[in-house]
Amino acid sequence: MTPQALLDRVRIVLCRTSHPGNIGAAARAMKVMGLSRLYLVQPLCAVDEVAAARAAGADDVLASAVVCGSLVDALAGCVQAVALSARLRDLGPAAVGVREAVPSLLRMTADGDVALVFGNETSGLANDELQRCQQAVTIPSNPDFSSLNLGAAVQVMAYELRMAAWGGLPPAPTTPATPFRSAPAAIDEVERFYAHLECVLVATGFHDPARPRRLLPKLRRLFGRAALEKDEINILRGILDSVEKPTGPRWQGGAADTEPHGK
Amino acid sequence: MTPQALLDRVRIVLCRTSHPGNIGAAARAMKVMGLSRLYLVQPLCAVDEVAAARAAGADDVLASAVVCGSLVDALAGCVQAVALSARLRDLGPAAVGVREAVPSLLRMTADGDVALVFGNETSGLANDELQRCQQAVTIPSNPDFSSLNLGAAVQVMAYELRMAAWGGLPPAPTTPATPFRSAPAAIDEVERFYAHLECVLVATGFHDPARPRRLLPKLRRLFGRAALEKDEINILRGILDSVEKPTGPRWQGGAADTEPHGK
Repeated sequence: MTPQALLDRVRIVLCRTSHPGNIGAAARAMKVMGLSRLYLVQPLCAVDEVAAARAAGADDVLASAVVCGSLVDALAGCVQAVALSARLRDLGPAAVGVREAVPSLLRMTADGDVALVFGNETSGLANDELQRCQQAVTIPSNPDFSSLNLGAAVQVMAYELRMAAWGGLPPAPTTPATPFRSAPAAIDEVERFYAHLECVLVATGFHDPARPRRLLPKLRRLFGRAALEKDEINILRGILDSVEKPTGPRWQGGAADTEPHGK
Repeated sequence: MTPQALLDRVRIVLCRTSHPGNIGAAARAMKVMGLSRLYLVQPLCAVDEVAAARAAGADDVLASAVVCGSLVDALAGCVQAVALSARLRDLGPAAVGVREAVPSLLRMTADGDVALVFGNETSGLANDELQRCQQAVTIPSNPDFSSLNLGAAVQVMAYELRMAAWGGLPPAPTTPATPFRSAPAAIDEVERFYAHLECVLVATGFHDPARPRRLLPKLRRLFGRAALEKDEINILRGILDSVEKPTGPRWQGGAADTEPHGK
């Protein structure tokens, strides 16, 4: 893939942005570095003349921005979502530095779109948004004043992406070839797996939604780290199906003293 | 010299700036990366409430800004001045990329102050200003749209300076601490989990040992990649227990028509 083709697969996702000027600044920051795909999740302001003024010629990026009702919609079809996070959280993925994270993110564009997810100017990303992302990155900053403007954060990220795309990506760490390997699962496939898993855990009684014990974030952390593949999603979903409707010859589950269900 | 001491010797010099918002944005961009020394050469606007609003907490940088009548004054005592230049000029020094230029610039702080010189928003640096600089640097950008906002340009430069000063490493929060993190599981704990998993999968009918379909190696590959932790082993084993002995209120599994096992 050409450097530009790598950048064409990067989505910039702004969640609940409050100030139109920041949307305009983000559009300009993107275009000046060769990015074009802007997603606005539940924007709290209009994309108005203030945004257009700050875009200063990046009107095409503003005009083609996709407005989404949820982060899940904005990430549909992506193979990786990376959260920009100024502070460490209890929940969600561990944060690494931008420069460390960008090359591997760009390599993933070989399999599909990737997304950089930015939170609201004041409140940042909500925990449930952060948990939709498989990775978090931090822009190194002054620990006593780490309040990066949203447009400036997009600028730094876009700059790092361009530098990495045109700088020649370092060779990927050699992963042993295995016949099992399949394509990475899309984010929405992974989300459907989580939903199915939750359902089954409620059904088996392991998970009580009234006393969640942070179980689901912990499971997201585990499987997020594994970076699930399509084939693995199929296996895991099949396992969940089999738990819901067991057919096994030695089934000793819900009813040890009766005939197995479905035989 | 400490990384901060290196940054303390960097002057950001803005020549003939037109928009107070850009001065404020530059101050914020500087402070967030640990820079503090702002010089304004013949500013064409006041440092007013618009500047203060965009500075968003970097008021101290604005308040201590040095207003100069000429670039020569602003560079007094510096050992090196570097011009930010979007376009190549006939006159003045040849431009190199930012990332290439910054480390040697920081090394020169051992001998005294160094300056990064930014031109007017519309006209850039005048030729006579450019010639006062010993070096020119360019921020790589989209050749079809290279119009970087002034504040954004200061942000990228300040970021590169911080990255170089700290050796490419963020200063303090390098270790992603999460309360979820637990010790790595021992190999035998992981093996017992695999054995338990296999048992349950046979019981649910998902796994047929007579037709194994390479299922278990695939699951080993998945969980091996995740590098399971002790706490995660406990969760996964608990899930398997719950599948074997469901207690859930909505359990519809092995025996929909009987009382759940173990109640």
